[in-house]
Amino acid sequence: MSLTRVTSFAVSLDGFGTGEGQALEAPFGHAGVRLVQSFFGTRLFAEMQGTGGGRRDLDDALMRAGWDGSIGAEIMGRGKFGPQTGPWDDESWRGWWGEEPPFGTPVFVLTHHPRPPLVTGDGTVFTFLDASPAEALGVAREAAGGRDVRIGGGVGTVRQFLAADLVDHMHIVVVPIILGRGERLWDGLEGIEERFTVESVSVPSGVTHMFFRRKE
Amino acid sequence: MSLTRVTSFAVSLDGFGTGEGQALEAPFGHAGVRLVQSFFGTRLFAEMQGTGGGRRDLDDALMRAGWDGSIGAEIMGRGKFGPQTGPWDDESWRGWWGEEPPFGTPVFVLTHHPRPPLVTGDGTVFTFLDASPAEALGVAREAAGGRDVRIGGGVGTVRQFLAADLVDHMHIVVVPIILGRGERLWDGLEGIEERFTVESVSVPSGVTHMFFRRKE
Repeated sequence: MSLTRVTSFAVSLDGFGTGEGQALEAPFGHAGVRLVQSFFGTRLFAEMQGTGGGRRDLDDALMRAGWDGSIGAEIMGRGKFGPQTGPWDDESWRGWWGEEPPFGTPVFVLTHHPRPPLVTGDGTVFTFLDASPAEALGVAREAAGGRDVRIGGGVGTVRQFLAADLVDHMHIVVVPIILGRGERLWDGLEGIEERFTVESVSVPSGVTHMFFRRKE
Repeated sequence: MSLTRVTSFAVSLDGFGTGEGQALEAPFGHAGVRLVQSFFGTRLFAEMQGTGGGRRDLDDALMRAGWDGSIGAEIMGRGKFGPQTGPWDDESWRGWWGEEPPFGTPVFVLTHHPRPPLVTGDGTVFTFLDASPAEALGVAREAAGGRDVRIGGGVGTVRQFLAADLVDHMHIVVVPIILGRGERLWDGLEGIEERFTVESVSVPSGVTHMFFRRKE
């Protein structure tokens, strides 16, 4: 059965999924790379970058579950496509992901300002949808051809899908830093753990991986 | 050397150290016993209660570090003594801890409304201090006779001592629940992880133990 999944989503110990001051040059705001440092150290990330190196460590092993071909479509909020808000002043900007995005699947960008689909150099199609989480999930699941749908972020998008009880599996990476400011993942989600079985494992890089599986 | 320690202090995944609505019958507010459930399951807790049973599990082993005789004095906020605020209307109420408190050491209660010391049936002395964290620590360290001083909570008290950079060692228990409301431990503490070496371990009960040791 096709699952709706959040994969390797990093939050600080105080619950922030991104820092304050998101901008073109600072996708995570003042958090910088601190939330994704354990990911950046992996062989998986090096492979995605086409560089050598990277560690085959526990982070690598656990994070590969989101990049093993099991995902057939990605849903993201507009903030994960680019830092602009409101009407698109400049449709020529083609997003943060370049002409060879890492997704390898159709991507659905949630926005109240739809624009024509964007096709990158490698053929990845970004479709812009003004839709509710459930509607977007219906469209993405159709496109996923039986594979899973990733809720790719950012924070507000994951929170919306959790609030709508649409997430089947969630892999959260708790990073032992206190960000202090930014966007909180857990706000408005009191008690959601009751819908999930939770397993945790701390690894030598310092982060704790938490797996939330929807209860049967 | 005598250390200033926070021992087995539980927070929810969204960073709350206590729930909303603290009251005489609800020391953790709406959190109920959910934050301390892994502690309640231990042999250590059973011994403190004078009952049988309890598990000699990883939680038990890790939490014993705070109850092994290494603590020589305890500092707590007034909210850990009792739910009253403001002037003491009724000094005959002797606190949440009964006549045989578990501390086994002198206890210093921070309050802007000092009252005479209270001596429980087992001889534990509660001293009420209107003092800054550093001043209270000086008094408590004197009383501790070379042993460590525990910052026992509640949330605001731990946060004050962290903000004043007075904590040498902190054992935090992250409980995989989303409380949603209450008092947040990490507020105002952006970047404090830089002062500490952090080690984490997740255990089968579901919680993650995090040890913050002050960097040399």
